[in-house]
Amino acid sequence: VLRTVLAAQQGISRAGVAGATALTRSTVSRLVDELVDSGLLAEDEPMVATGRGRPGTPLHAGERPIALGLQINAGYVAIRVLSLRGRVLTERLETGDFVGSDPARTLRRVGRLANRLLREVSGEHVLVGAGLALPGLVSNESNVLLLAPNLGWSDIDLGPFARRLGVTEADLVIGNEADLAARSVATPAPGRPGPLRDFIYLSGEIGIGGAAVLDGRLLTGRHGWAGEIGHVCVDPDGPPCRCGSTGCLEQYAGRRVLLEAAGLPADATPAQLAEAARAGDPAALEAVDQAAWALGVALASVVNVLDIPVIVLGGHLGAMADLLRPLLAEQLQARVLSAHWVPPVVQAPAGDPAPGATGAALHVLETVVDNAAAWVDGGDA
Amino acid sequence: VLRTVLAAQQGISRAGVAGATALTRSTVSRLVDELVDSGLLAEDEPMVATGRGRPGTPLHAGERPIALGLQINAGYVAIRVLSLRGRVLTERLETGDFVGSDPARTLRRVGRLANRLLREVSGEHVLVGAGLALPGLVSNESNVLLLAPNLGWSDIDLGPFARRLGVTEADLVIGNEADLAARSVATPAPGRPGPLRDFIYLSGEIGIGGAAVLDGRLLTGRHGWAGEIGHVCVDPDGPPCRCGSTGCLEQYAGRRVLLEAAGLPADATPAQLAEAARAGDPAALEAVDQAAWALGVALASVVNVLDIPVIVLGGHLGAMADLLRPLLAEQLQARVLSAHWVPPVVQAPAGDPAPGATGAALHVLETVVDNAAAWVDGGDA
Repeated sequence: VLRTVLAAQQGISRAGVAGATALTRSTVSRLVDELVDSGLLAEDEPMVATGRGRPGTPLHAGERPIALGLQINAGYVAIRVLSLRGRVLTERLETGDFVGSDPARTLRRVGRLANRLLREVSGEHVLVGAGLALPGLVSNESNVLLLAPNLGWSDIDLGPFARRLGVTEADLVIGNEADLAARSVATPAPGRPGPLRDFIYLSGEIGIGGAAVLDGRLLTGRHGWAGEIGHVCVDPDGPPCRCGSTGCLEQYAGRRVLLEAAGLPADATPAQLAEAARAGDPAALEAVDQAAWALGVALASVVNVLDIPVIVLGGHLGAMADLLRPLLAEQLQARVLSAHWVPPVVQAPAGDPAPGATGAALHVLETVVDNAAAWVDGGDA
Repeated sequence: VLRTVLAAQQGISRAGVAGATALTRSTVSRLVDELVDSGLLAEDEPMVATGRGRPGTPLHAGERPIALGLQINAGYVAIRVLSLRGRVLTERLETGDFVGSDPARTLRRVGRLANRLLREVSGEHVLVGAGLALPGLVSNESNVLLLAPNLGWSDIDLGPFARRLGVTEADLVIGNEADLAARSVATPAPGRPGPLRDFIYLSGEIGIGGAAVLDGRLLTGRHGWAGEIGHVCVDPDGPPCRCGSTGCLEQYAGRRVLLEAAGLPADATPAQLAEAARAGDPAALEAVDQAAWALGVALASVVNVLDIPVIVLGGHLGAMADLLRPLLAEQLQARVLSAHWVPPVVQAPAGDPAPGATGAALHVLETVVDNAAAWVDGGDA
């Protein structure tokens, strides 16, 4: 019943749920009442009757369960509080240079911000957990960040950070920022699938993160490390990368590299770069072309390997998508073996500036849906 | 019951099956008798008693159901007849140059060979279908080969070819040769998993095919075209490829390219190339180094994307694995982001010369296992 309501794009009535689940109206009504009491569902005002019979009351996901979504990137930290309905209750994004930052200090700062936001939220909500998105490899067995090359962080146990947020270690999940951002595209609210079911996601920051979603599910690989598209080799004779390899995609299309090639300061925005390119500045045009070409070479290899010909650009790559698209599409068409049958498509969703934070919170809230019975029965509510 | 017997690496007794399935001995015995009568299972001589109780009779997959496995490659055609036990009853491999061959003529030749082999097989067997492995993109909705760049074939409907083999169109399956070869590694006999559950497979022929297996299952992508590792770009400034791109892996490590670079004739064997390299021939050494380096660059990108750090080399790449391994392993270690935690491994299984044909027949036989009840009941037996 809960999943049926969550999956509905608009509110659905008790009768609608009964129809979709093949349960009797009375069973549905009893279950809905329990779910509403526990805060997992909420009711709107009754609809105006449009036909015969009693008007239905639209049901939605409730807003009692909330989760913290956190993201630490090379260029910013973001903190969000999301409800089960997928609504942002409050958020904060602070830009800064976190390359080579002290992990303990950065985590203290994020913890302080998170607690400040939680205090803004009314006491009727229940914090179910926190998710933290990080730009690197995360252990799939414990809350350990193995390596975040662009932060310069490695082997950091984030378990103790949970306490600072007021959740247990078990209620903190950490994940790769691109993986979590891709989740937020695949499932924009808990239990509600988005329109894209198969796509490759690229997260453009100082580094470039990646993820692949097939049939609505994230490809994790053997250890949860799949999707490192930023480290696909564009040219083995290319510039050295922080990861130890050479010619990685992020050395051509990463934000800092792009701004530098365009002769802009490191704190310039993608919009400023786009403006310079549109104004015909030769260095900016050359930088954009170089990035589009490198994205085409790397993504063609990825599409040849994965057979997922839909590419979603996020971060600065999303902000510059219109500039990148012509050359990128041309390279994909020339280099993807199956392009003749299914031409690759490049999309750029309108800008969530920190989709990893959103995905991290959604990931936590999905566990509430998975354990709805325990939530209804338990002392949580 | 059938699956339990097939999954057993050695023969398993009725009592063993009862233990594994939590069915009663009498139920198991009745089902086994039906399966033995239908030819899906077979019994060995009773074992000598080693403990108390009646000695068990080891059960195996039967040999009544058989399938044709066919493979057409740039350098050979292969035809095999496999039984449900995974045993090759008879086979034929004919080398030749099929680059730019006439599809109709080649298919007639393969059909004639297949019929000759089927006549060698005793009449107690029942042909359940045929599988055809091809070096290219296959439609996942019909038996159409879309493109096989190294054969020079495109848009070929193989439906009518079924009749030539004496099976219905529905009982012919076609597939990518590397995908089917990878299946034969993942599941070496119907229903029996092999020791490798997660691996990237590379098929070294004139072109280079690829496939990825995770948790024993082939990654197919959106349309069944995943795994085209031969068209991962090693160097965008590299030589043009038949696919329309430049610098594809197969332009460095494909069989013909390798032999040419080594100054050997196009019909030389991988063993001859290996011999020349071991004897210190500079051109051969240079060709091997070039191939190993290119494999390292391309496979590092693939491992970064898929997080499957086990690589199985087939075809000429398998035959030359010892020569390729040092430089390939060095490149993987340097270029795979997670190599520090899980060093990539390169394997080369002992030489099935046409694993695509084996995989094609196994794929057909798996359908018998999936539909065992219909087989037992049906008029097939």
